[in-house]
Amino acid sequence: MFPLFWIAPAGSLLALLFACYLSWTTRRFDEGTEVMRQIAQAIREGARAYLKRQYRIVVIIFAVIFVLLLILSYNRLLPTFVPFTFLTGGFFSALSGFIGMTQATNSSARTANAARTSLNSALRVAFGAGGVMGFVVVGLSLLDLSVWFFVLNWYYGGLPVNERLLAVTQTLICYGVGASFQALFARVGGGIFTKAADVGADLVGKVEANIPEDDPRNPATIADNVGDNVGDVAGMGADLYESYVGSIVATMALAFSAGLGMTGVLLPLLLAVIGVLSSIIGTFLVYTKEDATQVALLAALRRGVWGAGIFVAVISGLIIYYLLPDNFGIFWAILAGLGAGVFIGYTAEFFTSDHYKPTRGIAQAAKTGPATVILEGLSVGMISVVPSVLAVVAAVLAAYYLSGGGSHPELGLFGVAISAVAMLSTLGITLATDAYGPVADNAGGNAEMAKLPAEVRKRTDALDSLGNTTAATGKGFAIGSAALTALALIAAYRDQILQFGYKLDLSLMNPAVMIGLFLGAMMPFAFCSQTIRAVSRTAGKVVIEVRRQFKSIKGLMEGKAKPDYARVVTICTASAQKEMIIPSFMAIIAPILVGVLLGPSAVVGLLAGALVSGFAVALKMANAGGAWDNAKKYIEKGALGGKGSAEHKAAVVGDTVGDPFKDTAGPSLNILIKLMSTSSITLAGFVLRMTLFK
Amino acid sequence: MFPLFWIAPAGSLLALLFACYLSWTTRRFDEGTEVMRQIAQAIREGARAYLKRQYRIVVIIFAVIFVLLLILSYNRLLPTFVPFTFLTGGFFSALSGFIGMTQATNSSARTANAARTSLNSALRVAFGAGGVMGFVVVGLSLLDLSVWFFVLNWYYGGLPVNERLLAVTQTLICYGVGASFQALFARVGGGIFTKAADVGADLVGKVEANIPEDDPRNPATIADNVGDNVGDVAGMGADLYESYVGSIVATMALAFSAGLGMTGVLLPLLLAVIGVLSSIIGTFLVYTKEDATQVALLAALRRGVWGAGIFVAVISGLIIYYLLPDNFGIFWAILAGLGAGVFIGYTAEFFTSDHYKPTRGIAQAAKTGPATVILEGLSVGMISVVPSVLAVVAAVLAAYYLSGGGSHPELGLFGVAISAVAMLSTLGITLATDAYGPVADNAGGNAEMAKLPAEVRKRTDALDSLGNTTAATGKGFAIGSAALTALALIAAYRDQILQFGYKLDLSLMNPAVMIGLFLGAMMPFAFCSQTIRAVSRTAGKVVIEVRRQFKSIKGLMEGKAKPDYARVVTICTASAQKEMIIPSFMAIIAPILVGVLLGPSAVVGLLAGALVSGFAVALKMANAGGAWDNAKKYIEKGALGGKGSAEHKAAVVGDTVGDPFKDTAGPSLNILIKLMSTSSITLAGFVLRMTLFK
Repeated sequence: MFPLFWIAPAGSLLALLFACYLSWTTRRFDEGTEVMRQIAQAIREGARAYLKRQYRIVVIIFAVIFVLLLILSYNRLLPTFVPFTFLTGGFFSALSGFIGMTQATNSSARTANAARTSLNSALRVAFGAGGVMGFVVVGLSLLDLSVWFFVLNWYYGGLPVNERLLAVTQTLICYGVGASFQALFARVGGGIFTKAADVGADLVGKVEANIPEDDPRNPATIADNVGDNVGDVAGMGADLYESYVGSIVATMALAFSAGLGMTGVLLPLLLAVIGVLSSIIGTFLVYTKEDATQVALLAALRRGVWGAGIFVAVISGLIIYYLLPDNFGIFWAILAGLGAGVFIGYTAEFFTSDHYKPTRGIAQAAKTGPATVILEGLSVGMISVVPSVLAVVAAVLAAYYLSGGGSHPELGLFGVAISAVAMLSTLGITLATDAYGPVADNAGGNAEMAKLPAEVRKRTDALDSLGNTTAATGKGFAIGSAALTALALIAAYRDQILQFGYKLDLSLMNPAVMIGLFLGAMMPFAFCSQTIRAVSRTAGKVVIEVRRQFKSIKGLMEGKAKPDYARVVTICTASAQKEMIIPSFMAIIAPILVGVLLGPSAVVGLLAGALVSGFAVALKMANAGGAWDNAKKYIEKGALGGKGSAEHKAAVVGDTVGDPFKDTAGPSLNILIKLMSTSSITLAGFVLRMTLFK
Repeated sequence: MFPLFWIAPAGSLLALLFACYLSWTTRRFDEGTEVMRQIAQAIREGARAYLKRQYRIVVIIFAVIFVLLLILSYNRLLPTFVPFTFLTGGFFSALSGFIGMTQATNSSARTANAARTSLNSALRVAFGAGGVMGFVVVGLSLLDLSVWFFVLNWYYGGLPVNERLLAVTQTLICYGVGASFQALFARVGGGIFTKAADVGADLVGKVEANIPEDDPRNPATIADNVGDNVGDVAGMGADLYESYVGSIVATMALAFSAGLGMTGVLLPLLLAVIGVLSSIIGTFLVYTKEDATQVALLAALRRGVWGAGIFVAVISGLIIYYLLPDNFGIFWAILAGLGAGVFIGYTAEFFTSDHYKPTRGIAQAAKTGPATVILEGLSVGMISVVPSVLAVVAAVLAAYYLSGGGSHPELGLFGVAISAVAMLSTLGITLATDAYGPVADNAGGNAEMAKLPAEVRKRTDALDSLGNTTAATGKGFAIGSAALTALALIAAYRDQILQFGYKLDLSLMNPAVMIGLFLGAMMPFAFCSQTIRAVSRTAGKVVIEVRRQFKSIKGLMEGKAKPDYARVVTICTASAQKEMIIPSFMAIIAPILVGVLLGPSAVVGLLAGALVSGFAVALKMANAGGAWDNAKKYIEKGALGGKGSAEHKAAVVGDTVGDPFKDTAGPSLNILIKLMSTSSITLAGFVLRMTLFK
């Protein structure tokens, strides 16, 4: 083995141990009163029940695909180990989501209870819970990669180094498919569940019955809180596991053709491990005085994230200077990735925070009713695409040319790929700041339902609102890195096709490429249509059920009888499971169809079209959704007539439209883009055999 | 001269004479009562005032650009005549809009008056008015093209035929810029005006004050009716003038490199003339019994459009058989274009008519409030992209390969270009069925304001609703032909660059191309954000003004005092003029910037990215907007509680959001896509001189 390799399992161990440590620190807090415990228990059970059902379906789907892959592998249309890497990728992605969710559901009551004492200790519990998720994702990714790297390196041990590297990286790149596929189910299914419950709860509760959010009289309120966990936590965990792994394996695969040898192949792993160390250090930079202001809290989180980023930059600079002195340009690619990530994050904050003009403009538009709220929000979402695209474009240019792409294109592509790894390297801490949001949200729900004093709810609300900002930043990282990774994956697909001895004409003047672009640009629209409709339909079912309960359960509105929470959970679960299937399969079937009917050049067009259009749509949806949410919160804080005013009602319509934008359709697009690429790569051999377009 | 050429001015004359005939037949009808005359006069004056102001600004902009083009031309960075073709293109595009609008404003009172007798005579007036516009657009296009072709052919007469053709077509292709640029101003400015007035009128009138549409007490009602004329008529006329001319000149330019000689260059003109004849014949097929049902009326219109299409197919088949016997495949390209146009039109009808599931689903979603109406409508809009993209993709494949692109790529590109000409060849009649909608809409307004009996309004409503269906079909044609034309223009741009002796690398693996794609895909989002915001902001101003008048003008709500209509018209005019500048210039500045900073390969990426993403966004906006509109009308007809119910209010929100989608942002995208291409072609020499990316 290569001595440098051992640093990856070591990094994995470190991340997992740190996750245990964080989990232990949050467990020491108390869950509070009996009522609080019961509420937490109900949410825990609902979330578990949902995941159990989801995993049952996913297991069946995985089993079928596994058999199909085995057949392909037996016919030598796939590297031998791909069916197995497919399984472990899916398994670890699911495990990341499961652990993150368990930790989150164990922490919401604790956060609410801690908020009874002080804002600061509540922050510590919630941030710790988020951190568990962050480091588990990172640790499991590195573990899985290390094990496979070890196995493959041993299996292909008889080959000379170069051929061995080729065989190893070719298997690894297919490994992303399993993780992506399970992540897509998690994001889409969880996203439909959470937003259907949320939208349904709001439509009847806030708009019709005029009761506050999380009011225990609302039968959809437990489902809403369950949704935060299955969508925003389990879904996000699986999603970012896939992003993290995907960016690393794509870079490893490109290192070989870039001529960087084993050092190049191991560099992304090394960068990830530096990121783990940096994130741990960053975590300790998140401290604050008792009862700090919200600005101070945000500054504390920022100190952690920034500290980690700077640390990564410095150490990776030193390492590249020593390991790859002839290719020091790669360091500039790393800086470009880190910089673009930070910039996209800030952009997201600018467009979605009520400190700035865009969100306030949406709130102002509420004066003329819901229609102008929608138009203004869509307008904000669409213009928010511009700075992020410019940042990615600048990062690509810088990463490509500064790492030497001008004279050696393969090196340039490696530069683009490693900039994505750099952007995600501090995932441990960025995910921590991101994942603590749903915990704070649930803590607020717990406080409301347990009828804790108003000041407790005020504290959890402060945390929740902070969480909205960090969530927007986190989504920026996820989307930005997805774009860079997808570029690397498209290049990897091309390499794969060329290795099969097939000729490609990737010119835009080739009608097959142009047609691929058209079809690819269409994909995000077809996908979002399905997922958004699923949310709105399921929400409709929830509304009808809630209305039924309001009518038929006597004494419910007076608080004398309890609603049937479980029934709403069941409705959302059943619907989410049914509706997640078609959009998820689109990502795999589209490249196969295009490849068979129009050939691999059209597939490259398809992937590029889906990337550029999906990137824009995803950004629009994430930022419009976030801005609507915060415009509503801005009014709730007292602006423009405050809660209950006509302006507030108009803003709630915007928030409701934005819910599936930002938490169902938008984030799923990241996965769609990458899954299309990885499945194209994995099935390249099969498609080339079947293609009509010789 | 070439004898075949004379057919183009002859066709032009025929179209213009037929327009005069149609105009004469509508003029014979009476304008009705004194009140009806006065209302029509007010709208006429408002519309004229708007256009006057718009043209004043456009003239200044054109003058500045003309001088800049003269400088470029003097420095041999442009063909000599381009500054002048730029001027005439803009002039005739504006003239088409102006004549169409004059005719429309002269016909609304006549239609309303005719509706006092029968539905059928009202249809004849309205359809005749639409026909004037259709044949004027076609006639002026052919006239302008003929004159320039004649002048250029004479000017370059000293050159051998081949070089002469090259010089002629190179000048002609730049000619589209002037038409496109003025069309973009007309569409964006008019679109902002009409939808700001419409949205503003609805927001206060229908939603707040609970008075019906077109109620004379609403101060925004005249502006709303003026808007129908300046946006939906003048804007659409300029737009389709540009589409028609653009598709013809792009095809002419490609004929040369396809090796089809003079016959190939003249073929698109010939096809257009066949279309004129067919459209005239089709017009006479539109007859119906007195007081026919709506289904029968639609069938009558269809008979006209279909008859014209079949006639074009047969005659063009014969002509290609005789003129280009070795390239009979071009006929299949023509059929592909005609077929795709019809298919996209039907798709639009399926997604936007209340006879089918999508629109009814939106109406059903109104049960759970405005948020689900919005979500369902967006979902319908996004999925509607799929069949249209598939149709265009199929047309491109068929046109390219059946006309011989497999062995001779240039011939394939010519096939794609001529399929766009075929799609637009029957513009005379398709535009007639499209443009009669706003006339019927205004007739309804006139009937309401003049307090004519309910049965008159019922008849104009029937015409209006039919107009919605034909408008959706017309938009399908406009978008589909824009996509095909843009493909041809991209190829023409490549030719232009190659003729300058510059090398292009158009592979998707060239980072410049990929970056161009990202930037191009971003453009429609930036553009729509601006135009939608302009509508929502201006509508906000209208709302505030209307509220002010309701409060300050005593006796207004009781019908005893008159509102100040002119003030609302002035507000909309001023806003539209201000807000149209930035989005319109984006289309010219983006390709220059990209070309200078990243080189011409990136420009091709930019154009392709804008095309595939803009096509999807335009379709989504057109169909979502149409579906929302008809879902509202469906409820107004009595479904789900009818007018005044909570469901109706929710549906009105959807309609209001859809207004700028379908009549401002969506249709402007067609022009954006093509203007980016034509301006890239025109400025290619300049950009190559300036580019940093050698």
